[in-house]
Amino acid sequence: MIVPKRYDPREFTALTFHDAATTFRDGSDTPRAYLERCLETIAEREPVVRAFVTLNPAGAREAADASTARWKAGRPLSPIDGLPIGIKDLLETKDMPTEMGCEAYRGNFPKRDNAAVWALRQAGAVILGKTVTAELGGAHPGPTTNPFDPARTAGGSSSGSAAAVGARMAPAAIGTQVGGSIIRPAAYCGNVALKPTQGGINRGERQATSMSTHGVHAGSIEDMWQVAIEIVRRAGGDRGCAGLFGPSTPPPATKPERLIVLETEGWASLDAGSRSAFEALLEQLRRAGVTLLRRGDHPWIEALEQAVGNGRAVCNAITSWENRWGIRNLVDQHPDGVSARAKATLAKAEAMSLDDYRAALMERGAAQLRHAAVAPLADAMISLACPGPAPLWSGDVPGQPLVPRPTGDFVFNAPSSMLFAPAVTTPLLSVGGMPVGVQLVGQQHDDARVTGMARWMLGAVPPIVAA
Amino acid sequence: MIVPKRYDPREFTALTFHDAATTFRDGSDTPRAYLERCLETIAEREPVVRAFVTLNPAGAREAADASTARWKAGRPLSPIDGLPIGIKDLLETKDMPTEMGCEAYRGNFPKRDNAAVWALRQAGAVILGKTVTAELGGAHPGPTTNPFDPARTAGGSSSGSAAAVGARMAPAAIGTQVGGSIIRPAAYCGNVALKPTQGGINRGERQATSMSTHGVHAGSIEDMWQVAIEIVRRAGGDRGCAGLFGPSTPPPATKPERLIVLETEGWASLDAGSRSAFEALLEQLRRAGVTLLRRGDHPWIEALEQAVGNGRAVCNAITSWENRWGIRNLVDQHPDGVSARAKATLAKAEAMSLDDYRAALMERGAAQLRHAAVAPLADAMISLACPGPAPLWSGDVPGQPLVPRPTGDFVFNAPSSMLFAPAVTTPLLSVGGMPVGVQLVGQQHDDARVTGMARWMLGAVPPIVAA
Repeated sequence: MIVPKRYDPREFTALTFHDAATTFRDGSDTPRAYLERCLETIAEREPVVRAFVTLNPAGAREAADASTARWKAGRPLSPIDGLPIGIKDLLETKDMPTEMGCEAYRGNFPKRDNAAVWALRQAGAVILGKTVTAELGGAHPGPTTNPFDPARTAGGSSSGSAAAVGARMAPAAIGTQVGGSIIRPAAYCGNVALKPTQGGINRGERQATSMSTHGVHAGSIEDMWQVAIEIVRRAGGDRGCAGLFGPSTPPPATKPERLIVLETEGWASLDAGSRSAFEALLEQLRRAGVTLLRRGDHPWIEALEQAVGNGRAVCNAITSWENRWGIRNLVDQHPDGVSARAKATLAKAEAMSLDDYRAALMERGAAQLRHAAVAPLADAMISLACPGPAPLWSGDVPGQPLVPRPTGDFVFNAPSSMLFAPAVTTPLLSVGGMPVGVQLVGQQHDDARVTGMARWMLGAVPPIVAA
Repeated sequence: MIVPKRYDPREFTALTFHDAATTFRDGSDTPRAYLERCLETIAEREPVVRAFVTLNPAGAREAADASTARWKAGRPLSPIDGLPIGIKDLLETKDMPTEMGCEAYRGNFPKRDNAAVWALRQAGAVILGKTVTAELGGAHPGPTTNPFDPARTAGGSSSGSAAAVGARMAPAAIGTQVGGSIIRPAAYCGNVALKPTQGGINRGERQATSMSTHGVHAGSIEDMWQVAIEIVRRAGGDRGCAGLFGPSTPPPATKPERLIVLETEGWASLDAGSRSAFEALLEQLRRAGVTLLRRGDHPWIEALEQAVGNGRAVCNAITSWENRWGIRNLVDQHPDGVSARAKATLAKAEAMSLDDYRAALMERGAAQLRHAAVAPLADAMISLACPGPAPLWSGDVPGQPLVPRPTGDFVFNAPSSMLFAPAVTTPLLSVGGMPVGVQLVGQQHDDARVTGMARWMLGAVPPIVAA
């Protein structure tokens, strides 16, 4: 197989599963054979990409054989029966350890299935392995490299899930997001991905923070939706939440009439190549008949831009406060088991007061009202999914200050996270030979609608390749 | 000391702490001496009451000595510095195991502090021991007996916390509630107790279900409030929640002008003694100048009664669905480590569909709107806190069907739980020699207001003793 040296969205063919069903039914292909092709790709690419922290080929083969038998008998459990999938190593799996990218959790093996993992097994999916996460879902990177350039990060914290899909090791993988941990790595690695409405997919034992979600990385929008909806049909959303709403098959491609271009606080510092590539894509949308609205076009859009204009700080304040007791316990128990990066975040959290936290919650709530207010103006919002191509990363330098964001900057992801809004990224840009994602962000519970519009974009809008 | 044979609210003196501060300051008493008196009571009563699953006298003495030194130096950490407190054994404590009343968790010792426990230590409280919980906070009882009659249940699931306070072993204890697990046992054991607004007190690692809360059992309303607010000042509320609002000292006694009498679905099956005792208390309130409104007096009150009229079923559906993946993992790992009662609940949960869960969430949400609608009609609602005195309980009979509710019926507690509303119970009734609580239920975030009204009731309304 060809290992791409550069990402060209006009040529790159992502790994898909949804189109394999007919071949499973007529016996010309089988889930076991599909799995073996994934394992071959893994054998070839994993030494450099390092997407997995644990692989379970024996368990996967057993599951794939059972799936093969079900397809043969004409009784698959779901459209994703036999789909090999990677699970971010923050989620518990009964047959593999859950180490969370954290030294203190090395060897942790609770032998339980996260609710989403349980649901995937019920739907017949093949649990292939645990994918690398930045430490505890934070900023301290694991060993994963970008599948399109090993000198660059795959993004984080869902580093391994994004890289495994980008490297065609698996057609889909589960990620989690608090600030930007699904959409950004997906955007760096050429995936499509869904970060659902807050509460959309059952987080199970991993309740994490008030803005944490499970989501899906995939090579195709069809697989992305099907994986999400098969989980939700069986395990619902988070406690107290209705869970992802939408059809039991991928929503049809739907052309938006109007989109709001969300600049975010990332706009000012955007590199010239990514900016011009994004503007070129917007021009394609205009040519296709989509009306674009920007901050100057309506005072409520300007108000929303301002409400999310401090998004990174708001997200960081909320998340670090919510994590402080858990991390404090971990540091007390394992002083050497937690990175200096995580300890620095804990120190900031422990300097916060309850009123600081309440102020951040109020800022988040106010931004959500600003977002609801623009609902009548457009079908969704469009923005970059990352501030340019994945940054270079070769580790911290001993004696030097820690690199602040080694897995990239979540400046374009903080808005959808704090808005509890569904976001779907599409790999429609290439900048300097690297993927750069473009995301659609909808109103809460508009997951299916945004997915349908993303599907339309992928089919109707020519991708942009910029220097 | 005298072990009361019957509960008479005119004579019973609960253990209090708030009035000890002056004696700590002038040295006529010390936190260590206070603790020793608690330990003496425990030595005397624990063999029958069985409130504690683990006691830590050495750790408690060390903490009490440190507190004594702080008071002596005129630098207590808070008004509850030195207060001995029991912690329900669902919450993790770094110095004691956390077994959750469940065989599968026997010996479980994660050596972490729950956020609320961490906050209590920061405030100088003396962590005395872990109190018995019904299995996993559910319906399967532990060994605790009622401090006023060992043939009766102490209620559940916060059995040990309620009994420890009722037996004067400690001035306060932490409980948790999903359906009725704080207010009902408190009502059976002669405590005051606060079940805060949903999200009011940080549940920490124990995220549990969407309607689970931490709360406080105490011998006095002053200690109840002070413990709650000292936790919240340090650890806030649940993730995403602003946390309990209110003054840093107990809210002053405040007479309500109007109260809604909430009958709930428990009214029809109430025993004659409890009903007439409650009506007699309502008559005292009328004499004190409080206007009482009932379901016949306003269509919105009738609408609220109907909205909570199926409260037990709604709470059970929501809670069992939310717990099903956790319990399924536990049963798979420890087939003999979980009670038949919990397995029966799991079976019901696994027969539910996502739509069943969504329907229950919608019923809960609709009831909350009905509750908000009555806010202008009255200052709060008043209702029984339990359907009569604690039931007799001596264990399931082998070969017979399981007793459905061995720790009592939560029929009067389901409303405040599903409404996410603050509830404070007061031990103002005695029926057949046993305590029966009366609760005030407020609008969300009215915790301090309800506490002030409960304080007024305790001071101004003569208790009722009925046969």
